[in-house]
Amino acid sequence: MRLYHVDMNPYGHRVLLILEAKKAKYEVYKLDPLRLPEWFRNKNPRLKIPVLEIPTEYGDKYLFESVVICDYLDEKYTRNQLHSRDPYVKAQDRLLIERFNELIKGSLECFDTNFAFGSEQIIQTLDIFEKELTLRGTNYFGGHRPGMLDYMIWPWVERLYLLRCVNERKFDEKRGLFPNFADWSDQMQLDDVVKKHANSPQEYFDYYKNARTHSMGYYL
Amino acid sequence: MRLYHVDMNPYGHRVLLILEAKKAKYEVYKLDPLRLPEWFRNKNPRLKIPVLEIPTEYGDKYLFESVVICDYLDEKYTRNQLHSRDPYVKAQDRLLIERFNELIKGSLECFDTNFAFGSEQIIQTLDIFEKELTLRGTNYFGGHRPGMLDYMIWPWVERLYLLRCVNERKFDEKRGLFPNFADWSDQMQLDDVVKKHANSPQEYFDYYKNARTHSMGYYL
Repeated sequence: MRLYHVDMNPYGHRVLLILEAKKAKYEVYKLDPLRLPEWFRNKNPRLKIPVLEIPTEYGDKYLFESVVICDYLDEKYTRNQLHSRDPYVKAQDRLLIERFNELIKGSLECFDTNFAFGSEQIIQTLDIFEKELTLRGTNYFGGHRPGMLDYMIWPWVERLYLLRCVNERKFDEKRGLFPNFADWSDQMQLDDVVKKHANSPQEYFDYYKNARTHSMGYYL
Repeated sequence: MRLYHVDMNPYGHRVLLILEAKKAKYEVYKLDPLRLPEWFRNKNPRLKIPVLEIPTEYGDKYLFESVVICDYLDEKYTRNQLHSRDPYVKAQDRLLIERFNELIKGSLECFDTNFAFGSEQIIQTLDIFEKELTLRGTNYFGGHRPGMLDYMIWPWVERLYLLRCVNERKFDEKRGLFPNFADWSDQMQLDDVVKKHANSPQEYFDYYKNARTHSMGYYL
């Protein structure tokens, strides 16, 4: 399998985490979003990123949409099942993954300089996840180890740490509002799968500073 | 199980079809969207419709989002599996269900009187589904019988027939552009599950005419 990926793209980051968690064999084809090759544009006219290319006996097949790709991988590789086997819990997790889109929107608002509105959306979403983790009473959303929901939200949580580079005092103050989520986040950083594809807060900070000057908002 | 449903709501229609296809035991609680009861507002502050209420030993649980509810039902009741057992086909079908949202948006545009733009979106989406059906070479998207994709798109296709009440000649002319999809649609109308929850084109026509005067766009 081959993943077409734009470096630092959080949706592609999701797929990398799942490929790693499933110990699948894969290669990554890195795309430069400012110079997408002609053959890629032809194959993928809606310019969706990431794309998973799956070789089959009938030729290569393609999948789009990070959540659909990750669910596909979880079903295709049955070892280390990431979704709950309980259909109700799985459904709940899918709703929470959708709910998390509000934090993603909030992050983009912050990036677009509407900082007050964006950070309020982030705080409100974190509040939902703090309560959910408290309710579940487990270390991870998936139980005693990270599951699909943990990995689906992780790329944006890892990126939140760049805010510490902006204002350390304020970051630690906000962090104190979500004690369970903060503990979860500390543990996630020690997970082997997470470590394999991690970047430091400073790397994200530099990347996003640079990305803004190149108006790459679409790919963030 | 109990489905909280607004009469004629196409998202609730999806869930009714799946409950029926799975031969699940259920009751329907009909809500009047203009007079949502206080207890419903408290239980469901985001006013999502439809809602599936699932009684458990730990009290009632709730699920939202028609697609999530229908996938839940397909996993919970293993008889008559509606999604493909092939993870790639299932993933493809999920992408097509998402793609179909453009036809839904197009229908709403038509309702909002932006008829030219809306009908163009409908035509473009039908073109994708016509090609997909031709490619699959089967009577239904699900093969020799309707599957999840067939039922997920059906509520809006059933409603498209109301356009025949507006302009019969034009309807038949457009229908001729999508011969395989038109055949599929004819067969779907004979399906027992579909028949159980069907309304006539005239009923939809009268309903939507009336709904517009009550500005119920949100619930359509």
